[in-house]
Amino acid sequence: MTTSENGKARRRGRPGYDLETLLKAAAELFYERGYDGTSIQDLATRLGVAKSAIYHHVPSKEALLSLAVDRALDGLFAEVAKLEQVDGRAIDRIEHLVRGSVTVLVDELPFVTLLLRVRGNTETERNALARRREFDHLVTDLVAQAAAEGDLRADIDPAMTTRLLFGMVNSIIEWYRPQGGLTSADLAETVATVAFDGLRVRSA
Amino acid sequence: MTTSENGKARRRGRPGYDLETLLKAAAELFYERGYDGTSIQDLATRLGVAKSAIYHHVPSKEALLSLAVDRALDGLFAEVAKLEQVDGRAIDRIEHLVRGSVTVLVDELPFVTLLLRVRGNTETERNALARRREFDHLVTDLVAQAAAEGDLRADIDPAMTTRLLFGMVNSIIEWYRPQGGLTSADLAETVATVAFDGLRVRSA
Repeated sequence: MTTSENGKARRRGRPGYDLETLLKAAAELFYERGYDGTSIQDLATRLGVAKSAIYHHVPSKEALLSLAVDRALDGLFAEVAKLEQVDGRAIDRIEHLVRGSVTVLVDELPFVTLLLRVRGNTETERNALARRREFDHLVTDLVAQAAAEGDLRADIDPAMTTRLLFGMVNSIIEWYRPQGGLTSADLAETVATVAFDGLRVRSA
Repeated sequence: MTTSENGKARRRGRPGYDLETLLKAAAELFYERGYDGTSIQDLATRLGVAKSAIYHHVPSKEALLSLAVDRALDGLFAEVAKLEQVDGRAIDRIEHLVRGSVTVLVDELPFVTLLLRVRGNTETERNALARRREFDHLVTDLVAQAAAEGDLRADIDPAMTTRLLFGMVNSIIEWYRPQGGLTSADLAETVATVAFDGLRVRSA
């Protein structure tokens, strides 16, 4: 973007040198080879930069993992925070959260994909799992509330409902590709329709 | 089970020596460490047997992978074969297939879990992916037929419906544990209810 010899501008202009590119590449490599199977050297090779270029941004591999999973988790919790502005019934807040989660998943695809693969082998992974559980509990509480209000099925355990609902949402990472032309808004609409109203056509 | 010195009885009696135990352990290790990251020695160590005990059953690591993913795929295609006996409409056949798939998933949990992680790095994996695609196409054709018959939503692309439906079904591997007391029949019923009729309570 610039031919300036000014250090800051040069750094910004070189591919592979900005934190965003670095984080995406790290998330993809951690997903493909596992965290243990990925070295800072692997990442430098993938990006075509020196290891020192990576250490310019982050002190360690674990810091990269932490930034990557937090990107996904911060996005999901930002959607939770928005629910305070949703008046009305619990089912409306759940619908908002499902649509918001689909959007986060599409917008932060490599990070959410990595988050869903995390198994708790390091401190960072255990923290990420704890935040995922916190999110699940929030959803389960909302589901229970919506069932108590008579809007969601009361014959299914709220924790099970949450698992199946977010099982469907999270499965999007298996096939969604940004270049396919499907917008996150369209996808969010379809998922919400299927989850809340079902696939069956109702006779009038 | 026996103290006989007869070779056959001894083999059957020793833990880790039968093909079933071997396949389950292989599926779990391949899932945990990846196929490339797992050696026959790792498997022998996990089972507490000599490598020769494994080679008694299978000629290679790839043969183990093949048997393990075929266990899952054969189970799923057995459910497809049963559909010939389901009279009536396409939606009835899809419901049967969803319930059957949940049952296979629960009964063959380590094998389906492995199958869903396969990415196509070897000939065996590519064959497995081809059979998964064949299954998906079968479901998509049934969904299209049910939509044409007016029973399933026609406003959602059949391939997308199949992805979301089996996204929900497949997500069960993330949390289902056999010792939890939830039967596969109950789980199949819940999944079919949520997928076809939705989570929302309908006003009368």
